[in-house]
Amino acid sequence: MYKVTLSLSKLDPDAKAPQYAQLYEQLKLAITDGELAEHMRMPSIRSFAGTLGVSTTTVELAYSQLVAEGFLDSRPKRGYYVQKLPEPYWQTGGSEQDGEAATITSIPRAAPMRDNLAYRYDFHLSKNDLEVFPFALWRRLSNQVLRQDHQDLLFYGDPQGEYGLRVQISQYLRQFRGCVCTPEQVVIGSSQHQLLTLICHLLKGQLLHIGVENPGYLLHAETFRQQGLHVCPIPVQDNGIQVEEVYAAHVQAVCVSPSHQYPRGIVMPIAKRLQLLEWAERVKGYIIEDDYDGEFRYHGRVIPSLQGLQGGHRVIYLGGFSQVLAPSLCIHYMVLPPDLIGVYQQMEHQMLLEQSASRIHQCTLQLFMERGHLEKHIRKMRKRYGLKHDLLIQSIQAVFGEKAVIIGKDAGFHILLRIEHPLSEHELVLRAREAGVRVASAAHTWLTPTSYSYREFFIGFGGIEQERIEPGIKRLYDIWYSDQGEARA
Amino acid sequence: MYKVTLSLSKLDPDAKAPQYAQLYEQLKLAITDGELAEHMRMPSIRSFAGTLGVSTTTVELAYSQLVAEGFLDSRPKRGYYVQKLPEPYWQTGGSEQDGEAATITSIPRAAPMRDNLAYRYDFHLSKNDLEVFPFALWRRLSNQVLRQDHQDLLFYGDPQGEYGLRVQISQYLRQFRGCVCTPEQVVIGSSQHQLLTLICHLLKGQLLHIGVENPGYLLHAETFRQQGLHVCPIPVQDNGIQVEEVYAAHVQAVCVSPSHQYPRGIVMPIAKRLQLLEWAERVKGYIIEDDYDGEFRYHGRVIPSLQGLQGGHRVIYLGGFSQVLAPSLCIHYMVLPPDLIGVYQQMEHQMLLEQSASRIHQCTLQLFMERGHLEKHIRKMRKRYGLKHDLLIQSIQAVFGEKAVIIGKDAGFHILLRIEHPLSEHELVLRAREAGVRVASAAHTWLTPTSYSYREFFIGFGGIEQERIEPGIKRLYDIWYSDQGEARA
Repeated sequence: MYKVTLSLSKLDPDAKAPQYAQLYEQLKLAITDGELAEHMRMPSIRSFAGTLGVSTTTVELAYSQLVAEGFLDSRPKRGYYVQKLPEPYWQTGGSEQDGEAATITSIPRAAPMRDNLAYRYDFHLSKNDLEVFPFALWRRLSNQVLRQDHQDLLFYGDPQGEYGLRVQISQYLRQFRGCVCTPEQVVIGSSQHQLLTLICHLLKGQLLHIGVENPGYLLHAETFRQQGLHVCPIPVQDNGIQVEEVYAAHVQAVCVSPSHQYPRGIVMPIAKRLQLLEWAERVKGYIIEDDYDGEFRYHGRVIPSLQGLQGGHRVIYLGGFSQVLAPSLCIHYMVLPPDLIGVYQQMEHQMLLEQSASRIHQCTLQLFMERGHLEKHIRKMRKRYGLKHDLLIQSIQAVFGEKAVIIGKDAGFHILLRIEHPLSEHELVLRAREAGVRVASAAHTWLTPTSYSYREFFIGFGGIEQERIEPGIKRLYDIWYSDQGEARA
Repeated sequence: MYKVTLSLSKLDPDAKAPQYAQLYEQLKLAITDGELAEHMRMPSIRSFAGTLGVSTTTVELAYSQLVAEGFLDSRPKRGYYVQKLPEPYWQTGGSEQDGEAATITSIPRAAPMRDNLAYRYDFHLSKNDLEVFPFALWRRLSNQVLRQDHQDLLFYGDPQGEYGLRVQISQYLRQFRGCVCTPEQVVIGSSQHQLLTLICHLLKGQLLHIGVENPGYLLHAETFRQQGLHVCPIPVQDNGIQVEEVYAAHVQAVCVSPSHQYPRGIVMPIAKRLQLLEWAERVKGYIIEDDYDGEFRYHGRVIPSLQGLQGGHRVIYLGGFSQVLAPSLCIHYMVLPPDLIGVYQQMEHQMLLEQSASRIHQCTLQLFMERGHLEKHIRKMRKRYGLKHDLLIQSIQAVFGEKAVIIGKDAGFHILLRIEHPLSEHELVLRAREAGVRVASAAHTWLTPTSYSYREFFIGFGGIEQERIEPGIKRLYDIWYSDQGEARA
């Protein structure tokens, strides 16, 4: 007979989160905390539902989600078993794992869990500082758009995006990102996933293999894979992607983040940019340039885009307003090279594609940009993020001293913190969480099995309040080094 | 030597539309109007640019778009030639075309051109009546959302869509569309194209062939094709899709619009719904139910969804707010059957998918629904559209008499008008346009070559002002029947 040895808090039928989600959360914690041991059999759906006094659907949904995320394994006619935690999830690295890590290739990479807990010290890797968003101004502009005398703005707009906003975007890109483009080259969309999917189909027939940065941004690789492309991870060196490897991989396109490599913060030097453009010219390939936060550089000059270097003929440039303004507006864009505009328009026309970004937000943003507010806002935010950045660097240096290496500073919303520690990254993240500090392991950015002896974490500084940075870093150090961790290190 | 025999109006460098677009529009008109004859060679890019005093890029872009849309043919080293108008574009039908029509299978179907001209009598096929949109109320609710004390609403939200809105949607669907669903089954997205793309990947591995209604909605078929599925057009009879053909096609899913078939306005009777559900159960297939405007039925009761009939286990339900509220909000949703929720969540998690519909609009809509405004708005609009609908039917009957058959009345935003006429649908649309009347040919809804002796047009009544309906129908009759058309008919 199977006995539940687990203590669960009561499921609350009146809570905002549904009961299955509450159960899922509790079981997930029990698994990651080791309370439910690897390979242990879970109670059957029916008996567990009886024990908990909930419907079998509730338990089934909780189990399915855990199976989906790789926490449980469902074996036909036998039941549900606690899985060994999938490696890419909480890459432990370290010499004791070397042999094993190399064998993990078929498990799709998963991202760190989205965790909506409130943390006292929230070093979220990509959070904006929304405290100083110009709420009143945005409301005013938005109210100007949403009026009966503009009622047609509630109807479908230009499927490629509002022309007026595309004019603003192309001016902005020319002035601030050094791009070469016209409004006709700009295509607006509601998410990077959607624009990347479109790109795959624009290049259909000429694109089978695509290179992506390794380590890099999971969404790129997964979207290309979803659209049937063969994804080739290209190693990132200290000065960016290895161009010889791009040649060797025989890809027809490569996706890079030259202004601020994600996650390692490298700026691709001009020589390498030119090499990459030469590659594209030679093989008639395309460079997809993701310039997700090129505006935020805190010391030295902002780096102009790669797109602007040689006329942009072989570059598809990706940008958006998540970092410079707010993610919830869901406005992204791409700049197509001239030879793809006709292809795009044919596709839009044939498929009856409709614009997916809110036309009301597009028009509001157009007013916001026309009147110079975006420029002002970016200047203000650059200053604000710069202060937080400097404070973070100083705090880490003062508190961690020789124990930490800082990677990818001077830009964006995060740095990587590298330390040596006997505990795994997973355990260190959990300890930090218990102490009210949010940090994320950088393991999920590796697209191929890898092993290293150090531990690496994202430390974001965009969203955290300035006065919590130093205490947060101290707390992190204490929790990692004050007890046996310190002794063993 | 080649001579330009064409009279073009001057391109205006200061106009809102770019010069290439102005040139494109003029050339397109010249081709559809027959001013530029089939198979004629166009001037070379360089010489034409010289003649017009514009850059070669301008001409090149205009030509590329015309090539992309099938108006011109580009022959290497020889130049650009005016194409025979692709049949599916302006399906002429008629007995003189029978033999030829059957050979056209490889040209991808194209939609009628999107035409932003202002028409005096605008029978646009899918336009809302935005005159009575509750602007002040929406501004007020939106301003409540967009406040500094809710600053976190500017950050990324739940990738599946705001939970509070999903609660409202599931309640609404249960109450007004007879669906069986929980908020956990609802997935929000910014466009139908995006949700359909997700569905293709949720069913990956088990879905190779998909049935779609013929005639039907182009976007469905094209999106499935884009995602690599084999699309099987299933004939629509007078009472909906032919279920025997669904069996015969050996598809694993079928996409239908049972409440109001697009474009023919058929309501699928209960017996056929049950047959279709039985098919799905037997072959373990899925029914994708597009319920795009099920709310708008003007005589008799609203038809409940197919999803609600047998627990929704094999139905993926698609809905949205374009028809009931406004397209520009870009909020759509789907209801997944329980067995696909885990699959969806795994995909969302692995790919780092983000929500693509504005979180600000989502929260505003949630307030709007919570306070009962959506229900009230739909009641008001149903009455308003119903009046316009009845007026349209009366006008057509009074003006066209025996000359017209009305198809698919009593619901939605359009009817189909069928007439007999010696002129082609293309010519009749052009004549109407010249007389300030917008109507669209229904030819582009056919997914396979077809021939019929009648002429069929979309006559939309949602967006046109009530007092223009009767004069518009009179104008249409006059322009089609008052001169030689009448004599020849």
